[in-house]
Amino acid sequence: MKDKDENYCSAHLLITSGSQQLLYMTAEALCDAGDIVLVEDPTYFVFLGILQSRGLRARSIRLQRDGLDLAHLEQVLQSLRRRGELRRAKFLYLVSYFQNPTGITTGFDKKRGILKLLKKYEQAAGHPLYLLEDAAYRELRFAGRDVPSALSVRGASDRVIYAGTFSKPFATGARVGYGILPEPVFSAVKHIKGNHDFGTANLLQHLTAQTLASGSYARHVTQLRRRYAHKAGVMKQAIKMYFPPEIEWWEPEGGLYFWARLPRQIPTGVKSEIFRSALRGDVLYVPGAICYADDPTRRKPDHEMRISFGNASEVDIHEAIKRLGNVLQKFL
Amino acid sequence: MKDKDENYCSAHLLITSGSQQLLYMTAEALCDAGDIVLVEDPTYFVFLGILQSRGLRARSIRLQRDGLDLAHLEQVLQSLRRRGELRRAKFLYLVSYFQNPTGITTGFDKKRGILKLLKKYEQAAGHPLYLLEDAAYRELRFAGRDVPSALSVRGASDRVIYAGTFSKPFATGARVGYGILPEPVFSAVKHIKGNHDFGTANLLQHLTAQTLASGSYARHVTQLRRRYAHKAGVMKQAIKMYFPPEIEWWEPEGGLYFWARLPRQIPTGVKSEIFRSALRGDVLYVPGAICYADDPTRRKPDHEMRISFGNASEVDIHEAIKRLGNVLQKFL
Repeated sequence: MKDKDENYCSAHLLITSGSQQLLYMTAEALCDAGDIVLVEDPTYFVFLGILQSRGLRARSIRLQRDGLDLAHLEQVLQSLRRRGELRRAKFLYLVSYFQNPTGITTGFDKKRGILKLLKKYEQAAGHPLYLLEDAAYRELRFAGRDVPSALSVRGASDRVIYAGTFSKPFATGARVGYGILPEPVFSAVKHIKGNHDFGTANLLQHLTAQTLASGSYARHVTQLRRRYAHKAGVMKQAIKMYFPPEIEWWEPEGGLYFWARLPRQIPTGVKSEIFRSALRGDVLYVPGAICYADDPTRRKPDHEMRISFGNASEVDIHEAIKRLGNVLQKFL
Repeated sequence: MKDKDENYCSAHLLITSGSQQLLYMTAEALCDAGDIVLVEDPTYFVFLGILQSRGLRARSIRLQRDGLDLAHLEQVLQSLRRRGELRRAKFLYLVSYFQNPTGITTGFDKKRGILKLLKKYEQAAGHPLYLLEDAAYRELRFAGRDVPSALSVRGASDRVIYAGTFSKPFATGARVGYGILPEPVFSAVKHIKGNHDFGTANLLQHLTAQTLASGSYARHVTQLRRRYAHKAGVMKQAIKMYFPPEIEWWEPEGGLYFWARLPRQIPTGVKSEIFRSALRGDVLYVPGAICYADDPTRRKPDHEMRISFGNASEVDIHEAIKRLGNVLQKFL
């Protein structure tokens, strides 16, 4: 925790099996079937799976380069109030650092603005409107400066649920995550955790504690950041070299993903020619469409792709972008 | 797996975070709020917590020394059918080896009988009636011979969900459990598992696989069985020495628990004089009452206790039973 916050002491820490478990349990604790969760447009597609499995509805808030479009957030809140549906809205889910899939980081002013807006509509909702801040990629910054979390917004930490993890920056095979939660959400989620699995394996918690105390965690993260910075650099160079100029793309300051946008009429989905051609060349990307919630108020975009540099070697990254570039040239 | 079974190949294996997670996910997969789960009377109290958290109702089936009372099971099924509630019944939960809390092991004939009865009422229920066999303590046998699991009942393994674990016989700090499930339950539970936590930590799975392959697991279990056998022996001797003769008690052939029954009029619950006197002497037992489901058809027994020999040293076991015996002498 890099944040200073006057409410810090009122928050509680819970160790979880990856941050995935905290996302699931938060949805379970705060929502009944049919309730509404606000999400970024696009958002982490696995979270959409959680919503679906619990019978919840998503309402999408447009994204700008520095995070959520606050005007659109207010518009959605107003429209929910008008239609008498605000009482079904329970929280907003935000992947605040190097977002999956777009790589966008939400600025601190935006976080303050989000919390202010949620607060404003609480009376009409009849209950707290929480912000679930998913900071899974926070430690993977390789350019620019850390942004304080929403927990640092003065007087608002009783509305912030912070999901962190050691999976991404340290050990995917250990899957130790954690949540910082205000009451009464903490007690509800703790109770759910007890029923789900009785607590995260003690061995993994000890292992994480030791690597934190010994300094080997810090060394590992530093090394990892350098490594991802280099891979991102290789991918950026390759994209510049091989992607047609009509393609808009986002360079991240951390995390694992580039986001690319084709001209609107060219589909990238699993059934598209581009996806299948790429796959024939052994290149896999995440089609943008699966990162968008079903939302009756807009057509689902189908002309984007998430491209990951996390796993592949530098050589493979270069080769894959070259092949993907060739595919794209053919269809543009 | 010690069982031979012709349907073995049709079952699927799922690794879970302890067997607790499989119990929870099975309830989530098979039941809607308001549904009915059949349980032993008494049963594992943590499972009752799962039912409560999911808004499920329990119906209790009486226990005999060798497991479930089949006549009572049929009586309950008939009564559910008569009242039009059989369609809300989804599965029977059975802790089949050295049951928590009574230490009772269900005989193989009983397992066959249970599956036959469940099958008989499926048509009236309108769906499969599953048996969830919780075999958490199976490997902790220190007397007598292993009983085949319900998976071995010919032609019935498509109705058996088997919950096993390495927590109890190997490493409580690793919490690796597993389920053997028939379709379509397997696919449903696998999907739920993905949403809950994305899979059990790889590191723990590798660790378990290595200890199994190297033989160190087998050595550990052998040693553990000897150790628990000795502790159980010490507890038995102490109970004989210090408990008043009016107290009925069960000697287990494995597992971690003795079960003791006082005369009916003498309460053992958390508010009872006996519980508080024991606690003042630093002796803790699990009051029998918390192991009984709420069931309008019978008064909840409140005159029993589960006494564990798992954690304490031999010296402490002897001393604790002596103190508990002194408390009991006072109230009898």
